[in-house]
Parts: sequence; structure tokens; C-alpha cells
Amino acid sequence: MERLLPTDFPGADTAYDLLDLTRELADRELAPRVADFEERGQFPRAVIRTLGRAGLLGLPYPEEHGGAGQPYEVYLQVLEILASRWLAVAEAVSVHTLSCFPVYAYGGEQLRKLLPDMLGGELLGAYCLSEPQGGSDAASLATKATHEGEEYVVTGTKAWITHAGQADFYNIFCRTGGPGPAGISCLLADAATPGIVPQAAERTMGLRSSPVAQIAFDGARIPADRLVGAEGEGFKIAMQALDSGRLGIAACAVGLAQAALDYAVGYAREREQFGRSILEYQGLRFMLADAATGISAARALTLAAARLRDAGRPYSIEAAKAKLFATDMAMRVTTDAVQVLGGYGYVTDHPVERYMREAKVLQIVEGTNQIQRLVISRGL
Amino acid sequence: MERLLPTDFPGADTAYDLLDLTRELADRELAPRVADFEERGQFPRAVIRTLGRAGLLGLPYPEEHGGAGQPYEVYLQVLEILASRWLAVAEAVSVHTLSCFPVYAYGGEQLRKLLPDMLGGELLGAYCLSEPQGGSDAASLATKATHEGEEYVVTGTKAWITHAGQADFYNIFCRTGGPGPAGISCLLADAATPGIVPQAAERTMGLRSSPVAQIAFDGARIPADRLVGAEGEGFKIAMQALDSGRLGIAACAVGLAQAALDYAVGYAREREQFGRSILEYQGLRFMLADAATGISAARALTLAAARLRDAGRPYSIEAAKAKLFATDMAMRVTTDAVQVLGGYGYVTDHPVERYMREAKVLQIVEGTNQIQRLVISRGL
Amino acid sequence: MERLLPTDFPGADTAYDLLDLTRELADRELAPRVADFEERGQFPRAVIRTLGRAGLLGLPYPEEHGGAGQPYEVYLQVLEILASRWLAVAEAVSVHTLSCFPVYAYGGEQLRKLLPDMLGGELLGAYCLSEPQGGSDAASLATKATHEGEEYVVTGTKAWITHAGQADFYNIFCRTGGPGPAGISCLLADAATPGIVPQAAERTMGLRSSPVAQIAFDGARIPADRLVGAEGEGFKIAMQALDSGRLGIAACAVGLAQAALDYAVGYAREREQFGRSILEYQGLRFMLADAATGISAARALTLAAARLRDAGRPYSIEAAKAKLFATDMAMRVTTDAVQVLGGYGYVTDHPVERYMREAKVLQIVEGTNQIQRLVISRGL
Amino acid sequence: MERLLPTDFPGADTAYDLLDLTRELADRELAPRVADFEERGQFPRAVIRTLGRAGLLGLPYPEEHGGAGQPYEVYLQVLEILASRWLAVAEAVSVHTLSCFPVYAYGGEQLRKLLPDMLGGELLGAYCLSEPQGGSDAASLATKATHEGEEYVVTGTKAWITHAGQADFYNIFCRTGGPGPAGISCLLADAATPGIVPQAAERTMGLRSSPVAQIAFDGARIPADRLVGAEGEGFKIAMQALDSGRLGIAACAVGLAQAALDYAVGYAREREQFGRSILEYQGLRFMLADAATGISAARALTLAAARLRDAGRPYSIEAAKAKLFATDMAMRVTTDAVQVLGGYGYVTDHPVERYMREAKVLQIVEGTNQIQRLVISRGL
Repeated sequence: MERLLPTDFPGADTAYDLLDLTRELADRELAPRVADFEERGQFPRAVIRTLGRAGLLGLPYPEEHGGAGQPYEVYLQVLEILASRWLAVAEAVSVHTLSCFPVYAYGGEQLRKLLPDMLGGELLGAYCLSEPQGGSDAASLATKATHEGEEYVVTGTKAWITHAGQADFYNIFCRTGGPGPAGISCLLADAATPGIVPQAAERTMGLRSSPVAQIAFDGARIPADRLVGAEGEGFKIAMQALDSGRLGIAACAVGLAQAALDYAVGYAREREQFGRSILEYQGLRFMLADAATGISAARALTLAAARLRDAGRPYSIEAAKAKLFATDMAMRVTTDAVQVLGGYGYVTDHPVERYMREAKVLQIVEGTNQIQRLVISRGL
Repeated sequence: MERLLPTDFPGADTAYDLLDLTRELADRELAPRVADFEERGQFPRAVIRTLGRAGLLGLPYPEEHGGAGQPYEVYLQVLEILASRWLAVAEAVSVHTLSCFPVYAYGGEQLRKLLPDMLGGELLGAYCLSEPQGGSDAASLATKATHEGEEYVVTGTKAWITHAGQADFYNIFCRTGGPGPAGISCLLADAATPGIVPQAAERTMGLRSSPVAQIAFDGARIPADRLVGAEGEGFKIAMQALDSGRLGIAACAVGLAQAALDYAVGYAREREQFGRSILEYQGLRFMLADAATGISAARALTLAAARLRDAGRPYSIEAAKAKLFATDMAMRVTTDAVQVLGGYGYVTDHPVERYMREAKVLQIVEGTNQIQRLVISRGL
Repeated sequence: MERLLPTDFPGADTAYDLLDLTRELADRELAPRVADFEERGQFPRAVIRTLGRAGLLGLPYPEEHGGAGQPYEVYLQVLEILASRWLAVAEAVSVHTLSCFPVYAYGGEQLRKLLPDMLGGELLGAYCLSEPQGGSDAASLATKATHEGEEYVVTGTKAWITHAGQADFYNIFCRTGGPGPAGISCLLADAATPGIVPQAAERTMGLRSSPVAQIAFDGARIPADRLVGAEGEGFKIAMQALDSGRLGIAACAVGLAQAALDYAVGYAREREQFGRSILEYQGLRFMLADAATGISAARALTLAAARLRDAGRPYSIEAAKAKLFATDMAMRVTTDAVQVLGGYGYVTDHPVERYMREAKVLQIVEGTNQIQRLVISRGL
Repeated sequence: MERLLPTDFPGADTAYDLLDLTRELADRELAPRVADFEERGQFPRAVIRTLGRAGLLGLPYPEEHGGAGQPYEVYLQVLEILASRWLAVAEAVSVHTLSCFPVYAYGGEQLRKLLPDMLGGELLGAYCLSEPQGGSDAASLATKATHEGEEYVVTGTKAWITHAGQADFYNIFCRTGGPGPAGISCLLADAATPGIVPQAAERTMGLRSSPVAQIAFDGARIPADRLVGAEGEGFKIAMQALDSGRLGIAACAVGLAQAALDYAVGYAREREQFGRSILEYQGLRFMLADAATGISAARALTLAAARLRDAGRPYSIEAAKAKLFATDMAMRVTTDAVQVLGGYGYVTDHPVERYMREAKVLQIVEGTNQIQRLVISRGL
């Protein structure tokens, strides 16, 4: 797999070392466990902790706050490697990294003191934006936070929360003011707060070791100093985090598709039909060539958007393109990978059927691909 | 759903009655059970028996043998309806119907006496062609049948057998002569024959209520009068049955896709985002219009091939086109149906994630879609 | 090329004879002339007359009016054959057939006396619906017809008129009443009427032997008894004709794609690279197999919609699907046909580059494919 | 249009200035002339000379030889800009740049003295590799060069030669030894050499201001010191140049698609249907969003491959991916751009029909996209 890192940017050596470390860690800690955890639908908290201790949970944040000071271009390649071994873990890293963003970017001095524990992975984060009715229409959210004395009292239901019941802290996007985006604020809550009640995990088609669930907020009282940014800044914070989150999902999609292609190529090389390795049949080769091309294009697009972000330039629309393109590509490539294995692709003895089930969720999360098209078309 | 039956062919009234009956039966007997059986991976033998008693297991065979004397054009529409409620059941009907073909078309007088019980569904059939190594390359099959006195002794392993362990009789394609297609024969075996040992069911991504498994033939002794056709005719029989089987799979794909579209449209009509039913958004409408178009095209192509078969004209290549087109279409449409539901599409509370998992197998069975392209390209 | 006609419907023999005649005529009269007329951008009026005398210009109309009394299912196959030799001629037949529809379906006794000359092709027809601003939005048309005494005085500009300057009569859709569909009427005008001024032909990418142009109506006076149907029925007439016209375009697309595929296969069989006919390379074979499949699906879908029309059942949505699917397919297949020939496909020595240029217009006329999707989505 | 240049690499300022200059030059010199030259099929020699004087004909070569010392990453962005205004000119620059490669990379000291005039554009170059029968199979070329005394005598026919009859020098790939790649050498010939006879230009579907033609070599005598590299190195030289050439075509495709998208968006913004700008319709917006996404992905993939080349790392497979992906994308985007304009897109009053005709050739040149898939699949 050709790496697209430029060879000569400042810190490139560190970056290459980091990618090597990640690959090694992924092979040793992730690959042997994924099938079992997926089947049991169990969240691998210990594995996440291992990643945290290896420094992989705060990569794109400054070292002064306990991060690794890596550009997004490098961080996303780490995500890609993780996703190629265990998508749920990569997604956990992406969600956690996202969960640290509000405090890092908008938190006051006091809140930012939490960053070392967050970025080190001692505290796992989650992100409570979606609601059962809301879906793509985040600005219409109904979860209410009423200011009472030194506290906000939060009531409502959040849905599709990754790490629900696993996280140590939640970013809660809730309505402190009137309707529309301007009435939304962001609170940082301890998971142990009474009245924060994670519900039973959803039964999903895939990505089962990363349970998602609704969370009921039943008059949960959050200290007022846990407000992140000012009142009314919640929507802006959420949208900014989403831009970064989309890049994370795009990188996950690239890793997943690469894993599927690698597995399919390996299988095709060994499998014989009509007296020849099926990898010699041009019909199959062309399908795999198209897959390899799609993966390279998605990777290049994703890293190009990351470089814009790293350079402090607008990258929101390019991030939406990367998310759209990479996840549609991953859906195609994983579906084709099953095809390469034929009947063997349809059974759980091989991972490609899992890849295909996992790919689907990527077209939906962090804004469905329909929402991405809306975002992109606004830039025309 | 627009039916494409011509209104005035002889027997059209009966055909319309039959489709109505099927719809009613499917709504009453299939729809309420599918989710449960799929989750438990249990084969619905009793449901199949009910269909048999309603006359749906021998539709395209003459009435004199216990069939319903229906043209393939009608039979396939029955399959489509069944598939729209429960794919595994439709596939069971398709496989069973296929399993009756060798005896019907090549069996001697004695063997054909079994037809009434087969076509009435008292005896469930299976079809043992594929082998673990063989896959698409049927002509290279290795299961051996040695003629000893009045018996064939069968040794080898068959793979991907639908109804393995459930069927009452098996069509076994095995080598009685030298290498290549000319050495293959077809035996009709009682399932209870000692030495016929169904293995544990495969753990599949979907279609779990229709277990497939390997069957080990460990010196199973089949009476010589159970030879179907002459020695060496096995490959020809298998290929002819495959042509019909491809039409069956095509009809199943159309039914599955129609179910997915109907569900997605129903959901979209109710679901609101940004204050409007999402069915009002043109981006979504266009996706659904493309789905509806693909379904209509697949249905028309499948029924056109069926009319060729019914008219006694060559239809093998058109059947391959129908299988290829309909199943690729179903994969796309079911994947898009999940997208319409967003996160709700990814959980098992709604059937669309199941549709998507089921669609994949249709691109693989009865000849992968790569094999279909080979068949089609030979006709150029 | 497999014909999909059922073998046994009443009149099938006549239909087969008709298709044979058409093929012969197309080979003799069309194929040798197309390249030259296309290059010179000249309309082949004499060829059209020949077709008329062979009875091909009034196929789907009753014999009592001078038509051939053929079902649409047969008429469309005639169109397909013509389109496979010369798209512009097939389109001329389609447009002319369409142009006879208003008088046939809505004309009074007096107007219908014109039918024999129209259906016999002595009088060539055209259809004036679109306007420069209107495009897809027919109901907003601005051409005005003012009732003065025994005449309508027509003022305005029509655009994209096939046969402009060639036709003997025009169906003019114009506003006799208030805004919206209800104010639209249909007039049948002699082409020689003063004030009907065809403009210079558009310079189009393809289909140049069928010039389209604007027509200026500069106070043209049409006798009031040339009103087709009642005042205010114009929009309804136009929409009904469009439904039929869409089937015609779909059939043209099938014929064009079939011609492109046939040419590409013939070329590929002869062309050698790396010591083998390129038709032996699976990558190319699969592309051609997909093309053949798309053509068969489009043909089946188109003829299925035609059978609905022939049976007097609703077919509007199926016609929209056929138009959408067949023309998108033709665009793909013709583009791929150029690819099969490589550099030779890009030069005018071979017809495939022309096929590709011609295919594009089919995605646009009789309602763009975006409009078809709108129509289809309304039926969900 | 978002530029993907990193902001801080050495020489970035120069690069931005260069892109600005190119844009200005393209707007002033190219855009106003393209339609006229395309219609007349005339090669714009003077425009090329202007570009040469502006320093745009030797961009990726070292300054010591008269080049501009720009990385490929920058050179390709220049090509993209040129292609967005006039594809034939961009292709001319690409072909010329390619034509300088053999002398630059393999030429002896004497030959390299020509570089300043070549890179400055005083001498226009061409590249004679393909033959009428050869096509994709370059290694089988039949043009013969016999060593006689101090000269090579060249006999044979080359095909599809860009700049045939316009160029000042030709790189001739010809057989000096036995069959296969090892027998091929490269000669640098003055265009004025007797016996080098350009034939009549091919009549192509598009890109008409860049005529291609066969060249007959009729015993043309080339001085032996015009051998580039050693005897037998020709195939290696040609393949290396092709890798670079593929990047050039990819960049051209990106520019062409961007031009088509920009034009379609501009048109859609102004065009109203049903009382609203058609750019407000989500069906159209999504199509345009997909186009924008494809363009960004192709650009990112192309520039990523260029960075590999600039870093001296293997880039051959990534270049093949870029060529395949970018040109397939451009074919789709330009075809859709015509669709956005509807009937207006089909006439020559707007440039989109030209873009669509031009896009097709990009899928064919510098190795058809089927050849690219072969190259890519070898890397699996």
C-alpha cells in the first residue's frame, strides 16, 4: 500500500514512526480480537485503554494539553490503519477525538484542565447530538436544558450515541434558548451524573462491538461551569466538530475498503477455478483494479482535505466530499469483495461479509451522504 | 405495483386468481413469521408444506404429474410475491421446483411416479451440484459414483446445499465416468440413505432460515434405477436446470427489491426532517425513482425470458441476463433502502437491513454474476 | 438479436412479416445513406416518403383511417429497427406518428378526413410544444392564440421543433385562455400559412439530418375549425401524446444501442492485440455482456409498457421508466462502443462516434430524464 | 475552485505566481480563440509559441536546460488550468513536454544542447509510438530502422500522431533489433527530413484544433547520432514517458471537467423552470454535487501521484489510477453538464457539447482505460 505522505515535511520521521507503531499495535492488539468481540457485541474498553497509553487517543491536539501534536494528515492515516484491522475501534478513536474537540476549542481554562485525562484516554468521551426525531436536522433538537441556579437541568432523549453507557463524559447539545440553531448550547457532563440513563443497545447490522444506544436525560443536573463556550454557541461547535468527524469517517472508510481489497486479492490468488488462479481472470482483475483505484482516490481526497485543515484553510466542503466519496466507495468495494469470494464470502468464516455490513453504517453517520451532497451543493 | 401480465392470454383469469391467492397466503402465512425464523435460523418446513397444499410447489409442471400447468411467466410472478414477503421461502420454492426438473424431464416412467408427491410438496427436494473446490467450475466435480451391481456407491463432498438435512430427496451430480462434463451423471437419492451425512449449517450473512450446508457422501449406496437419464447426461441436465433456476433467482431478486422499495417509500412518507416529509425531497425521490425503474426493468426482462421459455424458444442467454441484471439491481436497491431510513435502516427493528444482507447471496447463487457475464458474452 | 414478440398473439404472423419488411427496407434504403445525409445535415424527405408508401408512417392507427392497425408493441419494434440503421429517420417516424395523434384522438369528423394523407405520409407532421424559455415546464407556455372571427391569430415562438421547415402541418400548442394548463389549446396548422416562419436550423452535436429549429408565429391566422378538441384541452392532449412519444424514444434508444453493440462486437472480433482477437479478453467481454444485458432490459421494459398501452391500461409511468432507462443505457453503451474501437472509435470512418453523439439527445427530448424521474416518483 | 497546493513547500510563492500567470494567460489568449479554432480544425501554433515565451513549455525540467524547475505537482496544475480553457492547447503542452523527456533523460551531451530551444517552445515536439495495427500493444511495433553507415533508414507507418505535420522534431520509436521490447530504439528526427511524410489529418469527433494523423516513414534517413539512449532502450524510454504522460492526461481531464461543471452551474443559476432557478432543485444539485466530488477526488489523486514522482518514489501505478479515474470522471461530468443545459446543451452555442466530445478521447489516449486497469491489476 503506497503511502501518500510527503517525505519531507517537518516531523515526517516522527510521523512514519507513528504509523509503524500503529501498524504493529493494530496487528498485535486489534486483529486477533475483532471477530470475537464483534460476535459478542462487546465494547473493547481495555483495547481502547491500550491505545490511549500508546498515545493514540489525542493525536491531533497540542502536546501542551497531553496530545501528540500531529497534523490531521497523520492522524487520519493512523485511523485508516486501525480501521483496516477493526472498524469499531477506529470509530471509537474518531468519536473520542471528536468528543475532546469542544473542550479543547471552546472550553475555558478550568475545563481544559480535563484535557490531559481526556487525550490520554483515561476518560472516554461521547457526543450527544442526534435525537430520535431529529436525524439530519440537528438544528431542531428538542433536548432542553433549564438554567436553575448553578446548574442546568437537562431533559430529553438523545439517540444513536456511540459509547453510550461506556463513556466517562458526554458532550450534550441541548436547547438553552429559543428555537433554531441560536438556542443551542453544549454541556460537558460526567457520565455518572444521576438522571443520565443509557438505554439498551440498538441491535445493528454490524459494528456490534461499538454499541450505540439512546440516552435518556431525566432531569440530569449539570453544573453551570460545565457549559462549553457561551450559551448559543452549541450549534456552531457541533458543526465544526462534524467537519472533523467527517474526515475521520472518510479515513475509516478507506481503511475498511483497503482491508476488504487486500483480503479479496489474497483469496483470489489462492483460489483456483477452471485450472487457474481466479486472480488471472481479467474480469475479476478489472473489478479489483477499479476497487484499488477508488481506494487511492478516496485516500488522496481525504488527505488533501486534511492538509487544508492543517493549513488553517477552509476545508468543510472538501471534508463533505471526502466523507461522501470514501463511504460510497467502501460500500461498493466491500460488496465486491464478498463477490470475489463467492459463497465463501457470504459466510462468517471470512471477514468480508462483516466488512460489507460495516461499510453501510459509514454512509449514514456524521451526516448521511444525502446531507453531504447538500453541503457540497451549497458550495457550488 | 403494476403487473405486466398480458390480459388476454389463454388461462389469464386462472393466473390472476393464482396471484391473488399467493398474495393472500404470503400476507397470512409468511409475513408474520419471517423475522422470527430468520433470527433463529430455523427452516420453516411447515410453511413449505402449507404452500405445497395450496399447490404452489409444482406450478410449472403439467397437471397430469400433479403440477399446476402454469407457464413460467406466471410461476415467476408467484415467486416474486413470495420473495417480497420471505426470501428464504421463495428460494425454497425455487430450489424445490428445480429439484423436480431432472426427474420430470429425464426420469423414466418408474421415477416419474414420484412426481405427484414431489410436486405436491410432500417430498422436499434438494440439488447437489457444487463442491467445496468447484464453485463455478461444475464440470470439474469430483464426487464419485461407482457402479457396483445394482447400486451406485457415492463418495465425496457437496457444498452450499440448500435444504441439506431438510430435504427428502437429493439430486446428486457425480462422476460415473472420465473427467470433464461427459463423465457426469445424475442420481436421485432418498435423504435417509445411509452414508448421506449433512454437515453443520454454514453461518451466513443472511437468508438464515434457509440453511445451507455441506453434505458428505460416505459410500452411500443408491439403487441403480435411481439414475436420472442416461450415464453421462448429468452435466446437460444440470445446465438445463440452471437456466430455469436463474429465472427463479431473478424473480426472487425482483420481489426482494420491490419489498425494500415499498418499505422505504412507506417510511419516507411518514418521516419528517426540516419540517417536511422526506419523500418530498427531490434528491430522495430521484433515488427512489431510479429504484422503481430498475425493478420494472428487471421484472420485464425476467418475464420476457420466461415467455421465450414458455414458447419453447432458446432462452438460456436471456435467463443469464435476467439473473445478472435483477440481482445487481436488488443489491443496489436494498442498499439504498437502508439509506432512506438512515440510522433506523441499520437496526433490526426494520426489515431493510435484512433485505440488504439477503440481496448479496442472489449475486452469487446459481452461477455468480461473473459466470452470467461469461454466458452472455458467449452469445455475442 | 432475440426478438421478444410472443409467438402466438392474433396477428403475430403479420407482425413478423412487417418486421422482416422493415429490416429489408432499412438495409436497402437507410443504411447506405445515413452517413452522407448526417454529414451534410440534410433532411431525407424522399426516404420518409418511401417509408410512407411502405405503410410505416401510420402503424399504430386503425386501418379505417389509413393506418396499419398494429399494436404499439409491434410499432415500437419497427422503430427500433429503423433506429438501428438511421436514428434521425426513426425519430422522424416517431415524431410524425405523434403528430397524427391529436387529430386521431381528439379531432372532429372534418379534421379526421386528413388522416389518410397524414398516416400515408403524404403530409409530414410536426409538433410545436416547447418554447425557448419553457423547456420542461410546458404548462407555462406563452405562445398566444387570439380568437378573431373565424380564425385564431397566433403569436409567439416555439423552439426545438423537429421537422421545422420540412413539415406539411404543425400541431401548435398555444394559450387561448388564462395562465396554467387549463388555458392551453391545440391548433392544426398548414405549414404554408403566412406568419409561420421557421428559423435557421440549430447547430447540434448530432442527429443533424433531422434539423430542429425555432418557429416564429407572427400573427399567423389559423381557421377556427382547425382547433383540435375543445379549447383548454391542449395540455391534456400534449401530455397524452408525450406518453406515447416517450415509448417511441425508448425504442429508438434500444435500436441505437443495439447498432453500437453490434458494430463493436464485429470490430472486436477482427481486431487483434497482443496476438489475439480483442473479443477474447474477458475485461472487454464483460463490458459487452453488460451492454447486451442493458439493451435486453431496456427492450423488455419498453415492450412491457407498450403491452399495457395496447391493453388499454395505465402506462404513463411505465413509459417514463422506459424512456429514462433506455436512454441512459444507450448513452452508456454508445460511449463504451467508442471505447471498444479505441482511437478508431473517435474518428468518423466508423459510425460509433456518431452513435455516441446521437445518444445524448435521447436523454433530453420528450422530457429530460430528470422530468421522467419526477413523473416516476409521483407514482410511488 | 479550491487549490490543493500545500502552502509552505519551498518555492510555493513562485508556484502560486505561476498559476496566477497561467490563469491570466489562459483567459486572455486561449478562451477567446478556442471555439473558432475548434470549428476550423486549425492548430494554434502561435498560441503555443506565446505559451513558450511565457515559459510554460518546459515547466518540469531543470532551469539549467531552459526549463522552469517546477515540481510535477505544480506543472499539472498549470495543465489543468489550460485544459479548462482549451483542451487541445493543454494536450499540446502535455505532448510537447513528453516529447522533451527522451532527450532530457537519455540524450547524450550533444543532443541535450537542443533542450533550450525545445523547452522554450521554439521547437515543437511530437511522439511517434503507436502504429495502425499496434494500438495498445506497443511492444509489437513494426516500423523498422536499419543502420546504414552514419544513418538509420526508417521505414514504416506511425498512427495517431499529435502534432503530425506541425512538429519540428519527432521522437520515433522503431525496431532496430529483433522482435519484442528489446529490439526497439528511439530516434530524434528533424521534421524536415526527406521521407517523413505526414498524412491527412484524421476526422475526429472532437479536439479538432489538435490534428492527429498518420506519418509515413519512407526510407527517411536519420543521422546515427540522433539515437536517444542506447539501441534497445526505446521501449523503456517510451514506457517511462507514458507514466508521465498519463499524469498529464489526468490533469487535462480534471480541467475539462471543472470547466464543464463551472459552465453548468452558471447556466443552472440563471435558468428558470416552474418559477425557480433550476439550481434550486435538489435532483440537479445532487448531480452537480457528485460532479464536484468526482473532480476533487480526481484532482487529489492526480496530485498525490505527482508528489510521489516529485519525491523520486515509484508512481507508475498511481499514475495509471489517476488517468483511469480522472478520465472516466470527466466523461461522466461532461455528459451530465450537457444534461443540465437540456436542449441548449446539445447545440454549439454553448461549449458543453464540445467538452463532452473532447472528454471521450481522454479515455483512449496514453493507453486506453482498459490498459490502465491492466497496469493497476499487476500491482495488486
